[in-house]
Amino acid sequence: MKSRSIELTQVIQWEDAETARVEDYLAAEEPLEMRSRRNSLGVTLRTPGDDEELVAGFLFTEGIIGRREDLVALRMPSDKDPERNLVRVTFDPSVRLAANSAARRFSAGSACGVCGKASITQLRQRGLRRPKAASPLDPEILCQLPLKLRAAQAVFGRTGGLHAAALFGPSGELLVLREDIGRHNAVDKAIGWVLLDGRLPLTGHVLVVSGRGGFEIVQKAITAGIPLLASVSAPSSLAVQLARELGLTLVGFLRGRRFVIYSGEERIAVSAPGSVGVS
Amino acid sequence: MKSRSIELTQVIQWEDAETARVEDYLAAEEPLEMRSRRNSLGVTLRTPGDDEELVAGFLFTEGIIGRREDLVALRMPSDKDPERNLVRVTFDPSVRLAANSAARRFSAGSACGVCGKASITQLRQRGLRRPKAASPLDPEILCQLPLKLRAAQAVFGRTGGLHAAALFGPSGELLVLREDIGRHNAVDKAIGWVLLDGRLPLTGHVLVVSGRGGFEIVQKAITAGIPLLASVSAPSSLAVQLARELGLTLVGFLRGRRFVIYSGEERIAVSAPGSVGVS
Repeated sequence: MKSRSIELTQVIQWEDAETARVEDYLAAEEPLEMRSRRNSLGVTLRTPGDDEELVAGFLFTEGIIGRREDLVALRMPSDKDPERNLVRVTFDPSVRLAANSAARRFSAGSACGVCGKASITQLRQRGLRRPKAASPLDPEILCQLPLKLRAAQAVFGRTGGLHAAALFGPSGELLVLREDIGRHNAVDKAIGWVLLDGRLPLTGHVLVVSGRGGFEIVQKAITAGIPLLASVSAPSSLAVQLARELGLTLVGFLRGRRFVIYSGEERIAVSAPGSVGVS
Repeated sequence: MKSRSIELTQVIQWEDAETARVEDYLAAEEPLEMRSRRNSLGVTLRTPGDDEELVAGFLFTEGIIGRREDLVALRMPSDKDPERNLVRVTFDPSVRLAANSAARRFSAGSACGVCGKASITQLRQRGLRRPKAASPLDPEILCQLPLKLRAAQAVFGRTGGLHAAALFGPSGELLVLREDIGRHNAVDKAIGWVLLDGRLPLTGHVLVVSGRGGFEIVQKAITAGIPLLASVSAPSSLAVQLARELGLTLVGFLRGRRFVIYSGEERIAVSAPGSVGVS
């Protein structure tokens, strides 16, 4: 595994009311754009590394090429190239690209630039602002939220196949829970309910997701003015970068009486952390 | 939770060399298309239910609308409508849609119709064929694969944030393992390696994924001619439907000495199952 696939960062770890400043590894996440001549074939958020295989596998499994020979060349940028997340594809002349086919099929998510920085800049230009300050949340309330979420998940126990997103008020009261097979859809449903019900902005609220807190989930939380996003799993490097730049409080590994603060610790009532090394 | 969000189906459960035919619940997955006049705003795979909130939340969190008032109408189809997965959106005239902005941002995945049936028909038209028959796989070999996958996942233990996809040969030998923050990307990387290495088709091979075996993963496996797809988690209804129609062997909940066969049991050497009711 290449070094670009993980990143080291400083986080605050809370466990049983003890806090410590530690170093933690993050899975790297960066957008990758594929281009054929002047046409964009799509953008995906991926972990850097094995990019040539990613592009070949994507083009093949999505039916854009049918065999190895349809690919004449893949021009991969070097790590130092300013366009290091842009892959240029040359197809055999026999390959016919359906208009928009790749772009429509591609799981482009919210990637909108060809580097993480550009993606964040573009979100800033869209007018995304730092969520408002709120009274620091009691860590004991925070630790209860995954239990409350699971208790409310009627369908989860039956299929094991649904992601959940729930919004809680400042005292830990459940506002709305939505489920979906897609993580982003569960978040969109919860925020959509809030929007249609005229309850925006969500000052002082906490969004808890059952899966990973990735870049797109962070972006959706900030758009809705939510100050605190917590997940039971690990965030990506780009999610942490966006949360720090736009001032969202980002919590990961919220399990039992333990969690990790990746950004915005001022919104959680923790004592000043000591330093104990790598988690 | 509405009844459309889960589906009941017959599966074969294997546990400690005992097999049983049982009924199991699946999380429903169907494409949803959003359209404004004649323009498609994108297609997503979602669990039916709360569709109005999904569309409103998506349009808002992706920055296409900025407030409730930007949405003049959402015309939702009824369950009996033949276009029951098509939502018509009417925006306030002040809303300006950037060319292709929504389509590019939307996590459209591989959804390519507005119902599951249409999606599968379109894949058939792309020439997807039933994977070739292979000697039935020993369940004991199958049970070892998640352990082999985890053992090979160097990065996973450090970040907890990466999905894995691995291809194994008919005797359970590891061919390739790839990781990514995106489930589809990990699969694309593994299959891309096979394609670039000139090893296609993958007769008799098993694809093991660390996450969920959804519609798009099934599609990718079939495209590469892989006869058996196994995941440690639950598949979706649309994944099972596609696997059954195109003859892929689909295994879920592969954990310890237990797994569930959703499709193509002839490729696994299990004894004839008895019937014991709902799992």
